[in-house]
Amino acid sequence: MSTEQEVRATAERAREASFSLALVSRAAKDAALHAMADALEGRRDEVLAANAADVRRAEQAGTPANIVDRLRLDEERVAGMARGLREVAGLADPVGEVVRGGTLANGLELRQLRVPFGVVGIIYEARPNVTADAAGLCLKSGNAALLRGSGNALTSNTAIVTVLREAIAEQGLPADAVQLVPGEGHEGAKVLMRARGLVDVLIPRGGAGLIRSVVEESMVPVIETGVGNCHVYVDRAADLDKALAIVLNAKTHRTSVCNAAESLLVHEDVADEFLPVVIEALHEAGVTIHGDERFAEYDHVVAASDEDYAKEYLSLDIAAAVVPDLEGAVRHIRTWSTGHTEAIVTEDQSAARRFTARVDSAAVLVNASTRFTDGGEFGFGAEIGISTQKLHARGPMGLVEMTSTKYVVTGDGHIR
Amino acid sequence: MSTEQEVRATAERAREASFSLALVSRAAKDAALHAMADALEGRRDEVLAANAADVRRAEQAGTPANIVDRLRLDEERVAGMARGLREVAGLADPVGEVVRGGTLANGLELRQLRVPFGVVGIIYEARPNVTADAAGLCLKSGNAALLRGSGNALTSNTAIVTVLREAIAEQGLPADAVQLVPGEGHEGAKVLMRARGLVDVLIPRGGAGLIRSVVEESMVPVIETGVGNCHVYVDRAADLDKALAIVLNAKTHRTSVCNAAESLLVHEDVADEFLPVVIEALHEAGVTIHGDERFAEYDHVVAASDEDYAKEYLSLDIAAAVVPDLEGAVRHIRTWSTGHTEAIVTEDQSAARRFTARVDSAAVLVNASTRFTDGGEFGFGAEIGISTQKLHARGPMGLVEMTSTKYVVTGDGHIR
Repeated sequence: MSTEQEVRATAERAREASFSLALVSRAAKDAALHAMADALEGRRDEVLAANAADVRRAEQAGTPANIVDRLRLDEERVAGMARGLREVAGLADPVGEVVRGGTLANGLELRQLRVPFGVVGIIYEARPNVTADAAGLCLKSGNAALLRGSGNALTSNTAIVTVLREAIAEQGLPADAVQLVPGEGHEGAKVLMRARGLVDVLIPRGGAGLIRSVVEESMVPVIETGVGNCHVYVDRAADLDKALAIVLNAKTHRTSVCNAAESLLVHEDVADEFLPVVIEALHEAGVTIHGDERFAEYDHVVAASDEDYAKEYLSLDIAAAVVPDLEGAVRHIRTWSTGHTEAIVTEDQSAARRFTARVDSAAVLVNASTRFTDGGEFGFGAEIGISTQKLHARGPMGLVEMTSTKYVVTGDGHIR
Repeated sequence: MSTEQEVRATAERAREASFSLALVSRAAKDAALHAMADALEGRRDEVLAANAADVRRAEQAGTPANIVDRLRLDEERVAGMARGLREVAGLADPVGEVVRGGTLANGLELRQLRVPFGVVGIIYEARPNVTADAAGLCLKSGNAALLRGSGNALTSNTAIVTVLREAIAEQGLPADAVQLVPGEGHEGAKVLMRARGLVDVLIPRGGAGLIRSVVEESMVPVIETGVGNCHVYVDRAADLDKALAIVLNAKTHRTSVCNAAESLLVHEDVADEFLPVVIEALHEAGVTIHGDERFAEYDHVVAASDEDYAKEYLSLDIAAAVVPDLEGAVRHIRTWSTGHTEAIVTEDQSAARRFTARVDSAAVLVNASTRFTDGGEFGFGAEIGISTQKLHARGPMGLVEMTSTKYVVTGDGHIR
């Protein structure tokens, strides 16, 4: 079989599995999730042996150490996967929820119900733990998962999926609810992106390059996730102590995540007071400041270019500029933001109101660190990613965002 | 300027207009909608003269009469456009609605608010009244509209948009909230489909060919609308009088619409009783029946091929087959349906339950005509189209479906 035929056959099996999965009760899905968690822990050595082979190959190929680290599993990471599956079992089942409903004037009873998408394709990079996370979230939301990890994690992912499928089948659910997408190199992913009608939604999880290529090439509807050039704007009316704490937290709490701050904007009325303090604190925290002319008047600041304002650094770097007013901050954000998360620090109610109304991002925060844009922090329990598009889901995507709806309309011989 | 530059400049103006439109109060939007309606009526002769020029050109080019008819405006159709705009003014404004909200354990206040998409592109075919309908729905939902009608309605659409823009500007709103997309032939639409980042959503309205080409070519997120191969399944436990009335209504009430029935499935236990009756009644109503072997035992039935089961006829034709049981009906629908609307006729509660759970279409109806899948009938007041995709909106799309959401999170110096 060609890769195209193989991938399409895999997707057909997923579609078939999705028909029965859509009808499975919450209790049966939760039992399967617990069984999946138990199986991962019970067969940990098998998973770790498979992972060791991937790690060895990656090291021999001279793969950078940070990528090898993301690839590597250990006892704690396997335990983390199992814990994640059990947590998903504890979350409410979105399927069947009545989103709206009522009786129309003619007596027709209308209900809009949450239903699974059907078949969800997930294309992701090195971390093998995403395999278990994504499988769990798809299963709980009643979706069959087609998982396409990166080539260097193939042995790990194959072992994890084998363990999960056996656990699912033992619970009487269709094993094809969780499958790896076959195919060498990028070919498998490419077929997936063309499988309109077989795959309902594609979710890319990973770096900007991966996401862009899926968004541009896919004929299947895509939910764009994750690229975050997040801004913190320190307003004229900011409490500068709160501002300093928020800037430091947003930038340095964890640098490799999409909700880390990448740009700092400061109102010019507080620049003389705030700049020396924030520059000193960021410098002490090991952050390189790429600043505009005002910032560059101080030590420890390198000159920023447009490229810096556009960048998602994911490192101890921050772009910084002084703006003439709140409107200037809004304009800067409109020009450079990726629409993920922006924060204002201000004690002025009217400024907060204007900023949250004018800034068009998935999350707009007042007096809080950008790091709070997160499914766990928002109380969704788990997330499949953070959507930066406006269609379907925007911001952290939990189980509810993994569903579609359908209308069920009941009459008694009604005609028009 | 090249077409590409012209279209992108138009989209930039739309984006700029969308920033202020997002902040406009309901009262101001409703006043603009009334002014748009008044202007269309007040300048009716101008619009009709422009339309007469389009009609003349189409007739001279030998355009089929049914297309010329869809192109033609008259006093009643202009009044209909004005009435449509006033009705939209009467509908609730979705913008600002709190979709979910609460206070998190750490004291952060979380609200998910409805916001406009921003810039909505609508690509549609001959009917010039869609120009006013789409402009009204976009404006009320706070979206800037980029309208791309068909070439043969260009003079009419230009006149309508000129009138609407002047009315909008007189009310103090940005005229660029409503614009036609420039460019000859398909070039303008093609640029629109590539304008990712400038256009937030594309909605094609028209025939299957138009919709397919937009879905396949667009890099901007698309909401797929309208192709309906709708089924009526007459169950073993059907009340056959209700079944006959529903089949006739679904097929013949209006044939050119996407919620008309195109396929009839009958449980074999009632075939001997129902087939002669339904065939006779459909034949008398002028319907050509394309039936399977069981149907073909009767007069007035021509043999059906797979092509018939796949077809959206939009005419006085219906495909028909006898199925062994409810599961057979579900399988037939899974194979051939476009996911728009399917109906079951049954008095059996368990059969209704199984059918509505297993059939994965935007609307699943019990004992009611497929013709009810409609924004007006569902009580949404107006619709921009009927989505047959699972992402974002499914089924009739009213004003609520023309919005995205954003999270606004308020703290008091919160850090992680």
